Amino acid sequence: MALLVLKFGGTSVGDIERIKNAAAKVEAEVRRGNKVAVVVSAMSGVTDQLIGYCRAISPHHDPREHDAVISTGEQVTAGLMAMALQQRGINARSWQGWQVPLNTDSQHSKARIIDINAAAFRKRIEDGEVGVMAGFQGVTNDSRITTLGRGGSDTSAVALAAALKADRCDIYTDVHGVYTTDPRVVSKARKLSRITYEEMLELASLGAKVLQTRSVEMAMRYRMPVQVLSTFENAIGSDLPGTLVTDGDETMEQNPVTGIACTRDEAKITLVDVSDKPGVAAAVFGSLARAGVNVDMIVQTGSADGKTTEITFTVSKGELDRASKVLEGEHAKIGYAKLIAKDDVSKISLVGIGMRSHAGVAATMFETLAEKGINIQVIETSEINISILIAAEYTELALRSLHSVYGLDAK
Amino acid sequence: MALLVLKFGGTSVGDIERIKNAAAKVEAEVRRGNKVAVVVSAMSGVTDQLIGYCRAISPHHDPREHDAVISTGEQVTAGLMAMALQQRGINARSWQGWQVPLNTDSQHSKARIIDINAAAFRKRIEDGEVGVMAGFQGVTNDSRITTLGRGGSDTSAVALAAALKADRCDIYTDVHGVYTTDPRVVSKARKLSRITYEEMLELASLGAKVLQTRSVEMAMRYRMPVQVLSTFENAIGSDLPGTLVTDGDETMEQNPVTGIACTRDEAKITLVDVSDKPGVAAAVFGSLARAGVNVDMIVQTGSADGKTTEITFTVSKGELDRASKVLEGEHAKIGYAKLIAKDDVSKISLVGIGMRSHAGVAATMFETLAEKGINIQVIETSEINISILIAAEYTELALRSLHSVYGLDAK
Repeated sequence: MALLVLKFGGTSVGDIERIKNAAAKVEAEVRRGNKVAVVVSAMSGVTDQLIGYCRAISPHHDPREHDAVISTGEQVTAGLMAMALQQRGINARSWQGWQVPLNTDSQHSKARIIDINAAAFRKRIEDGEVGVMAGFQGVTNDSRITTLGRGGSDTSAVALAAALKADRCDIYTDVHGVYTTDPRVVSKARKLSRITYEEMLELASLGAKVLQTRSVEMAMRYRMPVQVLSTFENAIGSDLPGTLVTDGDETMEQNPVTGIACTRDEAKITLVDVSDKPGVAAAVFGSLARAGVNVDMIVQTGSADGKTTEITFTVSKGELDRASKVLEGEHAKIGYAKLIAKDDVSKISLVGIGMRSHAGVAATMFETLAEKGINIQVIETSEINISILIAAEYTELALRSLHSVYGLDAK
Repeated sequence: MALLVLKFGGTSVGDIERIKNAAAKVEAEVRRGNKVAVVVSAMSGVTDQLIGYCRAISPHHDPREHDAVISTGEQVTAGLMAMALQQRGINARSWQGWQVPLNTDSQHSKARIIDINAAAFRKRIEDGEVGVMAGFQGVTNDSRITTLGRGGSDTSAVALAAALKADRCDIYTDVHGVYTTDPRVVSKARKLSRITYEEMLELASLGAKVLQTRSVEMAMRYRMPVQVLSTFENAIGSDLPGTLVTDGDETMEQNPVTGIACTRDEAKITLVDVSDKPGVAAAVFGSLARAGVNVDMIVQTGSADGKTTEITFTVSKGELDRASKVLEGEHAKIGYAKLIAKDDVSKISLVGIGMRSHAGVAATMFETLAEKGINIQVIETSEINISILIAAEYTELALRSLHSVYGLDAK
């Protein structure tokens, strides 16, 4: 017997039939003798509709009111899920964020969880009732409703699991788990049965949109095992059909590389012949920061004569124009010969906790790409991650080649 | 300067543009120096959609979950209204039922208001903030959300007005006020500028669907002046363009009859040749009550020989078949010769506090109808109300004739 938290995302509760299907998963866990808490997202499309209402009323709206409005989506699903469980003969009730309560700070629309006073909630779970908590929402100490930001329901679920000292948090979604790379691009991509928190964090922030980064950080902090699995297959969480995100000291796969992430969402800016003097980097990145532009990769190379330098960095495609304008406005202050903006690039990242102990991972990558005639524009590395920028047209070729050479292909 | 509660019904906040229009009314009251609280219904159609979800999940659903789901409609409107007011430069915030709190008993989906702890709410109103309360909802003492039943937002508004000791409660709706009779039937129907609580209660329960009966009862108990007015005309509540429901001791119109209500929603059952012995009426109406059939008018007439009697009564059209079946099942016990069910009838009711002091009101009614050849099937009277049942085909003729004869026609 285990205490489980089951979280169902927007597509998993997208309509009445899907809510009933999700309730069947919950029932199956209960019938196996488990104690179960459920966390639900809004039915897909509902949150966007509510956000649309807010924007139509007023372009600059009060985030407190925005949260009061959009939190209703999860409230509806929680009530419907409790009913669907009751219909199956399962004792169940819904809990809104303020009813638990899930306490947050006052940063409306991106609130941080302070704590969950789950004593009453836990008591009822232990007495055999299924508690269905509305995800994505909390309450401030002056009783205003907050939301946790996009994808916040994953974070709600992991936080509730930690507060309940649950044995596992199952995140039901529309994919079967975490793959070695994007299966739509590489047909030989393989579903991972396990992955460490650290690897998942790198993959989540690098574009494998399976779990929200904050939820993985929280899972890692509380050492809470999290399983990503599909709502649309027959197996339930206790069969472990998905990918378990867990500690690295449990038996892991032996490959140096666990997965390869890819994003086409970044664009590259190069400043040519920047005068190589103190304060230049500060001028470049300070002005971008003040304009609210997030910078990802940064590399700087010196020129032969030591008088000028070249600075290259990436921003999200949507911010490329704004970043370019900001730097053109600062041209006199920074002093560069030319600004080159390119949005036809892809970022590919090898991720693996095994890199720590395997030498030559990067060398293999560079050789493989060189053989295929793929030029590497930018390189950035961390302890368990090597990321490169290449021309977008080579994305599929690079992904397939790397996936094979690191032994990730499905047999 | 006055303290006002403004309530906007579902059609008045039916879409984003209408919410903005309603916000303009609120702004106009604030600009005149009034302190304002607002109560809102769900956008029209939203509550029905949510009820549809509940029914689709489970035919016999937990009323606590039902309330958690359907209360979200008003929460959305409250947040959007607060935003729309802020957009106009008005300081405003939304309040859900539990935030005020508006405390109710635990009869979910038809909860009764226990009290409103409006101290914090009132403080902010007095400091110049507009408080926008989600109508139709409250909270139990164990923190579960309740709803007050259909039309409950009117009751929320009057209860809030009473708790705030407001000067007036304006109910913005899609009609211009309370009319002497249905203007769609009688073109000379006139909007009343004032009406007493007692008259409004008779009219509300007799089919003039302007204000919910419970809200009028509450207004009468707290002597709270309530104005019914249209959201879709230019005047605002403080111009008094609608119908003020208020005490009878203020200057009232002089007619013995204030208004004429009409409903085609009732059907008539006559039991012929019932043996005239003790316990027969109890057998008839007891069996109907046990079957949950509501009976409205009841008349009983003796036969010439004193051995049998005739019992006639009305039920709503929707319950006619069920009522007939119940009585057929009790045929042996009751002992009647024949059951005659008719659904082609109309009920017409004269209402007027002036009837108390005017003699001959009923006589005038009977003479008027006799002149037009209209047969009266059933008569029932109370202190300020005379109701009759006639054949449905005479409805318009009867209404127009009576409207004229009691001096109600617009000049």
